Amino acid sequence: MPDPLLTACADLRRTRLRAVLGERAALIPAGRSRPRNYPANPYPFRASSHFLYLVGCRADALEGAALWLDGAGAVLLRDPPGPDDALWHGPLPDNDVLARATGLTVAPWSSLSTLRRGRSVATVPALDRAEAEARAALLARPKESLGHAAIDEPLLEALVALRLVHDEGALAQLRCAADVSVGAHLCGMAATRPGAREQAVCAAMEHVIAQAGCTTAYGSIVSVHGEVLHNPHHLHVLADGDLLLADVGAESAHGYASDITRTWPVSGRFSATQRTMYELVLAMQASAIAMVAPGVRYRDVHLRAARTLVDGLVQLGILHGDVDTLVDDGAHALFFPHGIGHLLGLDVHDMEDLGDRAGYAPGRTRSRQFGLGYLRLDRELAPGMLVTIEPGFYQVPSLLADPGRVGVVDRALDRARLAPFSDVRGIRIEDDVLVTATGAEVLTAALPSAPDEVEQLVGRSSG
Amino acid sequence: MPDPLLTACADLRRTRLRAVLGERAALIPAGRSRPRNYPANPYPFRASSHFLYLVGCRADALEGAALWLDGAGAVLLRDPPGPDDALWHGPLPDNDVLARATGLTVAPWSSLSTLRRGRSVATVPALDRAEAEARAALLARPKESLGHAAIDEPLLEALVALRLVHDEGALAQLRCAADVSVGAHLCGMAATRPGAREQAVCAAMEHVIAQAGCTTAYGSIVSVHGEVLHNPHHLHVLADGDLLLADVGAESAHGYASDITRTWPVSGRFSATQRTMYELVLAMQASAIAMVAPGVRYRDVHLRAARTLVDGLVQLGILHGDVDTLVDDGAHALFFPHGIGHLLGLDVHDMEDLGDRAGYAPGRTRSRQFGLGYLRLDRELAPGMLVTIEPGFYQVPSLLADPGRVGVVDRALDRARLAPFSDVRGIRIEDDVLVTATGAEVLTAALPSAPDEVEQLVGRSSG
Repeated sequence: MPDPLLTACADLRRTRLRAVLGERAALIPAGRSRPRNYPANPYPFRASSHFLYLVGCRADALEGAALWLDGAGAVLLRDPPGPDDALWHGPLPDNDVLARATGLTVAPWSSLSTLRRGRSVATVPALDRAEAEARAALLARPKESLGHAAIDEPLLEALVALRLVHDEGALAQLRCAADVSVGAHLCGMAATRPGAREQAVCAAMEHVIAQAGCTTAYGSIVSVHGEVLHNPHHLHVLADGDLLLADVGAESAHGYASDITRTWPVSGRFSATQRTMYELVLAMQASAIAMVAPGVRYRDVHLRAARTLVDGLVQLGILHGDVDTLVDDGAHALFFPHGIGHLLGLDVHDMEDLGDRAGYAPGRTRSRQFGLGYLRLDRELAPGMLVTIEPGFYQVPSLLADPGRVGVVDRALDRARLAPFSDVRGIRIEDDVLVTATGAEVLTAALPSAPDEVEQLVGRSSG
Repeated sequence: MPDPLLTACADLRRTRLRAVLGERAALIPAGRSRPRNYPANPYPFRASSHFLYLVGCRADALEGAALWLDGAGAVLLRDPPGPDDALWHGPLPDNDVLARATGLTVAPWSSLSTLRRGRSVATVPALDRAEAEARAALLARPKESLGHAAIDEPLLEALVALRLVHDEGALAQLRCAADVSVGAHLCGMAATRPGAREQAVCAAMEHVIAQAGCTTAYGSIVSVHGEVLHNPHHLHVLADGDLLLADVGAESAHGYASDITRTWPVSGRFSATQRTMYELVLAMQASAIAMVAPGVRYRDVHLRAARTLVDGLVQLGILHGDVDTLVDDGAHALFFPHGIGHLLGLDVHDMEDLGDRAGYAPGRTRSRQFGLGYLRLDRELAPGMLVTIEPGFYQVPSLLADPGRVGVVDRALDRARLAPFSDVRGIRIEDDVLVTATGAEVLTAALPSAPDEVEQLVGRSSG
């Protein structure tokens, strides 16, 4: 079940992390499955991303395990299966089998007391309070040191530095996840028919992901109300003039994410106004992807897309004024309120459990400007980093009606020129872009985004 | 979105619960979504079953809300949406809209301090420690009173008494969930082909559930290793001589579960040995369902199925000896180690968050005998109760090889006569059975279980 390349990469990752730890030790728990409505009915177990990164293998047998790292090496702490486990869960690997599969020393949890004797032990933040309390008990720390006190900045910095740049093993998984997602979107387009429900398209897409042995990396968004940014509902009936926005991504067998959005016309034909705005979003994306290269500040990629949008809206007469001034005033955020993208890796917003440590370079913090404040990444790009590039155009009624949000842009906004675009509620186009030594590679390039091609893919079934 | 029948039923349920509470008050929180790999990437929100029962409506807008009950009436505590919620989550209903939809008084959480003044407040157990701590803070109880101290026995008894017997609103939802699950199983049989993977069949079944706007009520089991009772993996390739066991159930729009298992031959044809054992499991089920009626003790239904199994195994020469003695010795548990079924309602094991309070009548506790100890229900049946009837026959290698488990049955077991049945790893047949005034109604009867019919349904595609 483990992937040999990923297992070898994980060994190298552990060696690198241990070099940073020096005299200290680290405990990285896998975590446990979380209950749905009662403890015996859990959501599928999915180990912590830090643990997956350092062990290189996703397996149910690792539920409740933890990785111990110190100067002497790495130990996987895990209790062997109990007598009734085989009945309920099948033959689980014993610790010897697990040791061969992962290339790690595997020892029962009782070894921890010896391992940690006289050591300063670093750990990663727990995901919830139960985990934090259990962690404090394991490390014989007082309960009051829950949460923040358990956070070890040098360890987190080292993890961020490692996980920011994807190695060969990670890239193979990320490419696999991207390919599966491309297939899901093609199937979603083919499943689109006026009169069907959003959930029919969503189910068709998730079917492709499940058949590939993957899971969804996040809650799928498949909605004719694309202007609702995080929309988990799939109840609307698809109507002839609607645009359908689908933000659906697979997670690979060993936990690596992909993240793709496409927006297509339910009828198989964009209206003239829809096509105009779609092409503008596509131009935003092209201008942003063209900038992706080592050394480029991601915030500037965001602002480039913003500038492309404002420029387009000025040309359409929807905004009036100087493009640079409008961007400075945040005019784009009225229609594009989120960031141009984020880090992608084991998490769909990679390492967001560490707050902005991964997304923001040291010394940088979130802007207070509406829109820019939602940007999840403000670093200089480096080869091996994977980011999404996901511009959008949305008409959010509550936003456009809020004088506090429209602010100084109100004078520049020609609502009469905007009115004909009422059949565009939300468009987003999102691809996964790898920073290479010389520029960028779009991992999701196999999925068309040109409007003619999209029309053709949808139209074959619905047209 | 709320269902008028269910809303009316919930009103009646609240009235009944309030009558039991007397001078006391109760707080029933909906709970919050649980994080997958980081807090902003949660599993879909699913409210606590007690909350769903008393509010009668499943809605994302109710995340973080709670129901307050006292002598004066019921109040839904819920803070209205914040200014940025519409951007990320779409237009959420304000408290007036929610009040009209649910028929409840809706007030912000700040009202709690006035409501609880001078009152003794009962609550249900929290699902995890974070919830328990939050609850203790809300009720101004010391942190040390987490968990058990927060449990209020009279409240739990009253909830159990109410939820044990399904009203018209619950039954409509339960029938709907059962129908969707029947469709999923038919589709799973049709999708079965030698050479396909388990996940292809699982994805086809879950596709039907998603298209119906339902979710899965529990982790689907779709496996050629049916002898692993809780098997969440779907990686095996289906081979010609395999039996495929599928335990898959839908949860209705407002949270009610169904739970169906069928076992079918991948080839579309049972072998002679498979058919013999399949018919024996079917006979176990028939003998059990025939007993279901008001006043019957569910444990006796379990033992009837056990007796049918032992009787069949004696006739096959696999067991030797007196049937009653063999059942007393637990011989059936070697091949049928779990209980004949459980309560079904808002939870697939209904109210299992309350331990055995719902499943076991007052004064009764779990048996220490292997097998019988896994029986989740030991009550006298009453009209309106919904139970599963799910006998099985499994050859669990670790169980049959364990002298401690085989015990005194070893002398009665003829392993040579068992050997030809090596192509039967696991068979389970499970239906959802409603106790009526005079007997039983099988809610999942639309799904065939007779071997000829099952062969025909599978064979159409694979045969």
